[in-house]
Amino acid sequence: MSSTAPAHPAKRAHNFNAGPAALPLPVLERIREEFLDYRGTGMSVMEMSHRSPEFEAINNAAEQNLRQLLVIPDDYAVIFLQGGGSLQFSMVPMNLALPGKPVDVLHTGAWTAKAIGELKKGVPHNIAASTENEKFVRVPRNEEIKGSPDASYMYFCTNNTIEGTQYHALPTSAAPLVADMSSDIASRPLQVSKFGLIFAGAQKNLGPSGVTVVIVRKDLAERADKNLPTVLQYRTHIKEKSLYHTPPTFAVYILGLVTEWIAAEGGLPGMQRRNEAKAKLLYDTIDASNGYYRCPVEKASRSLMNVVFRVGPDEAIEKEFARGAAAANLVGTPGHRSVGGMRVSLYNAVGQDSVEALVAYLREFQRTRG
Amino acid sequence: MSSTAPAHPAKRAHNFNAGPAALPLPVLERIREEFLDYRGTGMSVMEMSHRSPEFEAINNAAEQNLRQLLVIPDDYAVIFLQGGGSLQFSMVPMNLALPGKPVDVLHTGAWTAKAIGELKKGVPHNIAASTENEKFVRVPRNEEIKGSPDASYMYFCTNNTIEGTQYHALPTSAAPLVADMSSDIASRPLQVSKFGLIFAGAQKNLGPSGVTVVIVRKDLAERADKNLPTVLQYRTHIKEKSLYHTPPTFAVYILGLVTEWIAAEGGLPGMQRRNEAKAKLLYDTIDASNGYYRCPVEKASRSLMNVVFRVGPDEAIEKEFARGAAAANLVGTPGHRSVGGMRVSLYNAVGQDSVEALVAYLREFQRTRG
Repeated sequence: MSSTAPAHPAKRAHNFNAGPAALPLPVLERIREEFLDYRGTGMSVMEMSHRSPEFEAINNAAEQNLRQLLVIPDDYAVIFLQGGGSLQFSMVPMNLALPGKPVDVLHTGAWTAKAIGELKKGVPHNIAASTENEKFVRVPRNEEIKGSPDASYMYFCTNNTIEGTQYHALPTSAAPLVADMSSDIASRPLQVSKFGLIFAGAQKNLGPSGVTVVIVRKDLAERADKNLPTVLQYRTHIKEKSLYHTPPTFAVYILGLVTEWIAAEGGLPGMQRRNEAKAKLLYDTIDASNGYYRCPVEKASRSLMNVVFRVGPDEAIEKEFARGAAAANLVGTPGHRSVGGMRVSLYNAVGQDSVEALVAYLREFQRTRG
Repeated sequence: MSSTAPAHPAKRAHNFNAGPAALPLPVLERIREEFLDYRGTGMSVMEMSHRSPEFEAINNAAEQNLRQLLVIPDDYAVIFLQGGGSLQFSMVPMNLALPGKPVDVLHTGAWTAKAIGELKKGVPHNIAASTENEKFVRVPRNEEIKGSPDASYMYFCTNNTIEGTQYHALPTSAAPLVADMSSDIASRPLQVSKFGLIFAGAQKNLGPSGVTVVIVRKDLAERADKNLPTVLQYRTHIKEKSLYHTPPTFAVYILGLVTEWIAAEGGLPGMQRRNEAKAKLLYDTIDASNGYYRCPVEKASRSLMNVVFRVGPDEAIEKEFARGAAAANLVGTPGHRSVGGMRVSLYNAVGQDSVEALVAYLREFQRTRG
């Protein structure tokens, strides 16, 4: 994207953070290059009016890039919101739950638990499947799912960052599928027409934190009571093309650059190939360690995005592992504070070179401490 | 802040945008300088975990800077949210309206109209004063305000960006004052203890769009029903120090840098001096134009932040004025699309030099076209 070498090459870490996470270096370089003067406007993108033709072009490009990458049909709207997944846990039922009809939920860990917590405040719902009894080491199998005959929609989380699980086939449901895709959107091809709504915080595969992508079938957005707060109705943002109120302009701009980068790197099939190769290298290393490293997740549910594993005999060695990794410029290896262990995130912008450095560290750590 | 001159000095516009708006050049240069490698972490700030010690330090610094600049008492929380003023129009009554008691509102233009629109969806309220009959050319005088004896709070907008009006003394109310301060926060000293709650989108005086500052008396935040969506309760964000969910990390970082810059430039008294001098220069030029330029706002209510005025005999000449200004590197002079005319925003980061360039243009335009 940028061919200008920086005057002082920056030190760059191998970044395995779970989100906010690594961004593509060419994108960061491009942002820096045009940071003080966006294409002759004499302003930074963050100083431009959201009503200016320049920002409208940025906003449209971000939407169009996503539409092309994800092959989003015309009867779906693509909008950019604020508030992250946590706001969507409430906004989805506010807008899409039909009076007196239940929301079906597939419960697979900490993030679906949060969504269920919001439903418990007054939205009828049905846990159509749960793997809690197995400590969430897998996602439900299709034959286990007991959907309601009259569900408003079926809610699930395509990739569970904390538990390290991911669906590799979509659950089936007569009701529209609604997915929290925060941690694997744009990491592999998907069939949008199978969904009623998809939401995703951008801060893993698409950009920085502060912008949330919502892809929603337009007819479903019309279910909402018009008496809801205006800013919490999807239809408001659809009608105003994400410009109802001041958007997080800089985050939308970066999302546009990241999606441009994904397209240049082979689109979603290209991302899938890279992500599969990275995950295979790491899982193979774990599996070949004679139990020194252990991934608790059932193989068919293993996530390509977040690899969770345990190290050696006890937690003290895991702390040592993380410290040594950080010293070796491998950042973000500790697991989520709620579960411990290790977690390594391999989002789109994490390079094969970073995973190679990591597995070299795994082998060396086992050789010297194992 | 930064003393490194850029390799290629960027063209910089005189930026009078209403928000998102101009940012201080030293802040932009600092951001660019540490963009790829934040202080030896090997990461951009936007790639860092919001749970990392580095980001926690950034988050704390942003809060502490605001506390010091605005002299915020300890019984007030300072939190960083998403969703802008538009979400606050609903979040404030959700959290602070007491059952069966009215919200008093001072109606002064387009932004209070939006807040009233959300109250109309089911919150009892009382228009305690309105200047609508005078086309909002001033804010209400204290003796005109008819507060309810049992109001939950009194809501007003300290500076009206579209109408170009600003309160220069606080309205009095027995109920807590709640203010939309989006367009004049940190532009002059204020007495926080007079308020129950203050909110402000950052994108005018404090940073980029995508982060909203809320300053709330902690006891008032306890009024809220715990059955509200978790993310829409102020208490959630107070308890978690704005880290309940992934914050807009980069916007919070910039807010920290902008508040640091304000402190270095003399704090709020320094901003007030600069802002008064800039506004005086422009209003004096308008008033000395023998009616060629006309500010419709009553003098006692004139805004130091947004100067609205009309030009010459008709709208055609106003379009010509805006085109000529843009050609002269004076950006953002057209008025809000809902009212027409001109509007020039003079937020903290707009320099005296920019206003001097603008008044030179006003004089020259009148001389050649008037």
